Amino acid sequence: MSGKNAFYAQSGGVTAVINATACGVIETARQHGDRIGTVFAGRDGILGALHEDLIDTTQMSDASVAALRHTPAGAFGSARYKLRGLEDNRAEYERLVEVFRAHDIGYFFYNGGGDSQDTAWKVSQIGTEMGFPITAIGIPKTVDNDLPLTDTCPGFGSVAKYVAVSAREAGLDVASMATTSTKVFILEVMGRHAGWIAAAGGLAAEQEGDSPHMILFPEIPFDRDRVLARVDEVVKRHGYCSIVVSEGAQYADGTFLAEAGGKDAFGHAQLGGVAPTLAAMIKDGLGHKYHWAVADYLQRSARHIASATDVEQAYAVGRAAVEFALEGRSAVMPIIRRLSDEPYQWDVVHAELSEVANVETGVPREYITEDGFGITEACRRYLQPLIAGEDYPPYRNGLPDYARVRLDSVARKLAPFSP
Amino acid sequence: MSGKNAFYAQSGGVTAVINATACGVIETARQHGDRIGTVFAGRDGILGALHEDLIDTTQMSDASVAALRHTPAGAFGSARYKLRGLEDNRAEYERLVEVFRAHDIGYFFYNGGGDSQDTAWKVSQIGTEMGFPITAIGIPKTVDNDLPLTDTCPGFGSVAKYVAVSAREAGLDVASMATTSTKVFILEVMGRHAGWIAAAGGLAAEQEGDSPHMILFPEIPFDRDRVLARVDEVVKRHGYCSIVVSEGAQYADGTFLAEAGGKDAFGHAQLGGVAPTLAAMIKDGLGHKYHWAVADYLQRSARHIASATDVEQAYAVGRAAVEFALEGRSAVMPIIRRLSDEPYQWDVVHAELSEVANVETGVPREYITEDGFGITEACRRYLQPLIAGEDYPPYRNGLPDYARVRLDSVARKLAPFSP
Repeated sequence: MSGKNAFYAQSGGVTAVINATACGVIETARQHGDRIGTVFAGRDGILGALHEDLIDTTQMSDASVAALRHTPAGAFGSARYKLRGLEDNRAEYERLVEVFRAHDIGYFFYNGGGDSQDTAWKVSQIGTEMGFPITAIGIPKTVDNDLPLTDTCPGFGSVAKYVAVSAREAGLDVASMATTSTKVFILEVMGRHAGWIAAAGGLAAEQEGDSPHMILFPEIPFDRDRVLARVDEVVKRHGYCSIVVSEGAQYADGTFLAEAGGKDAFGHAQLGGVAPTLAAMIKDGLGHKYHWAVADYLQRSARHIASATDVEQAYAVGRAAVEFALEGRSAVMPIIRRLSDEPYQWDVVHAELSEVANVETGVPREYITEDGFGITEACRRYLQPLIAGEDYPPYRNGLPDYARVRLDSVARKLAPFSP
Repeated sequence: MSGKNAFYAQSGGVTAVINATACGVIETARQHGDRIGTVFAGRDGILGALHEDLIDTTQMSDASVAALRHTPAGAFGSARYKLRGLEDNRAEYERLVEVFRAHDIGYFFYNGGGDSQDTAWKVSQIGTEMGFPITAIGIPKTVDNDLPLTDTCPGFGSVAKYVAVSAREAGLDVASMATTSTKVFILEVMGRHAGWIAAAGGLAAEQEGDSPHMILFPEIPFDRDRVLARVDEVVKRHGYCSIVVSEGAQYADGTFLAEAGGKDAFGHAQLGGVAPTLAAMIKDGLGHKYHWAVADYLQRSARHIASATDVEQAYAVGRAAVEFALEGRSAVMPIIRRLSDEPYQWDVVHAELSEVANVETGVPREYITEDGFGITEACRRYLQPLIAGEDYPPYRNGLPDYARVRLDSVARKLAPFSP
């Protein structure tokens, strides 16, 4: 092998398909062994670089790498760790360069959301500045689907499929028992600031009266009286009301319906419990018997019901990241470009990281029905292809046979990092 | 057609496979059209009989009936409605006989849990008493797996598979991020008095350290200090702790960890919210960052990940119910008899309803590890075959293509029933 080594790290909340991206990166790098040396994966994401805790993926057999494609969550460990600005914490960036230099790493592949794209961009800058040029490529990943420019974010299609399938199934359950049992069912889904995941629940409803009857988006200010009036109307018309609510549902003043109280590493409020809060509100106002579900991590790790389209796109952006790097590009991110809705056709092109970093995109108003409780045909046209196709993992003993990466870290060459 | 007509009703909480049982009943009856006339399904279960609200299944094409096999929830509507004792409410039983007489119904197939088997047994008695003999067959169905005599209850294997798959997937998610994020993850599952569903979560763990690390059963009195001490120990050893908790988790005095406050039609307390209660307890005692999920109806309607074994058994008990009826048996219930663990072999035999009614069976102590937090090898041997095999539904537009039964009721012949 003659080329520089590469460093790949997973960042932020994991998804059902982020390992498919890792698979795309590693397999593509292996195909170009003459130009890329060892692919090191960071144990626990970027922490692996800071602490020189590197996993040598050349120790993985081709079959082990291939198995990443059907394995959810972060096989190498991911981290919620945001590098601060260059001015505030230059030491961390310098440490990254120092570790990269020590292990002859010339390629940096950072697989994450908006914050991570910002980091990738900064790493590309500091490398040049310190005279150790680093080819830095951001690779999109987020169930929230809130990155700009790309048609969709790998990870989203699968959570969307999970939520739509679950909303349909639970809806049938409630429908079949509403006469004598639960009248209101609430499914809480993820999406702190963007209602994309909640919107996907709307795909479950294909005919008048189908579940879900209402979707509560973060983009539409929550109005207790309007919501209760609609619930009442739906129960009267259909005998029950099935609701998908985003964890980010909020009042007009920006107060979330429910806050768990804590804050995550990025300083964002840790949410959870919107469903029980809403259920209590409905019980209080209308007296209906209710049930609620909170899918939480189940939704984003549900590889068993992943979207085949999503898996394919997750792999494709991993492959493209390596290809862009080999073409000499840096400070870019592969994005999905939609060429047509039906049949859904797409390819992978690149966007400049400087245009991607820290920009969040919510559900546009024209994707939400005028009353604020549903999705429009335009939204359906956008979402539909993203959940298309099934890509079942192999099973053993009745359970998905997911890969386990159990490798020791490579020997350290540097003194420990003390920030 | 020359035989008596049949009445089939779904009762209580629905499952991913109760319609597979309906499919077994209807298809088998069709094969014996010379001896069984029309199969009427009760709209909303037994209410359909009381209110003479009958669906004529002969209007369903063979393909529509076949599609029931892959459709979750109750296609004809189910009811949480318990007929009281014969002494307390003779009028309801007499009404049933009256409706059966009016529609020439000689076969009564009642598909439900323990309460329903009790009803089926009473109907068989009153029919004889009133000089209108009714062949009454109970058909087992309950996700709780708490009926006696049968190896398992149709519906359980699929919820067990869902919970085991979800526990594995969410466990990988938590494991990959524990260094910088969630340390304790709690998945709340159903099972009011029996911990079978929680036990199934244990199948996800195959090696030391695998999720889930702890299972909290209704059968083991909840002891806050012991639980917190174990959570602390697990977090220290593995970096995180993944817990499956039954909604029925309770203190030694029988108080549930969390009670939603309401009561269902059978007078049972309506539970929910054990996960957030436990999470708050752990946060309070140990300070760990947590996440929790409540699967609620998602788990019992998850036909997309149904156990192939469960689907087959659900169909088989439906078929056997009709066959037993044709053999002249009454007041019996088809049960699954296990012939061997590995390979799992089983057949369907019958039990007397008098021995089944109102008996609940919990997880035996020898299926729970000595410390009370896990499942034993014996439990694993019992559970493993029940989740074996996948039986995927067909998909359309990225979503399961479930059947819809949209039939008008047959014309009424009697005056409305006023209890």
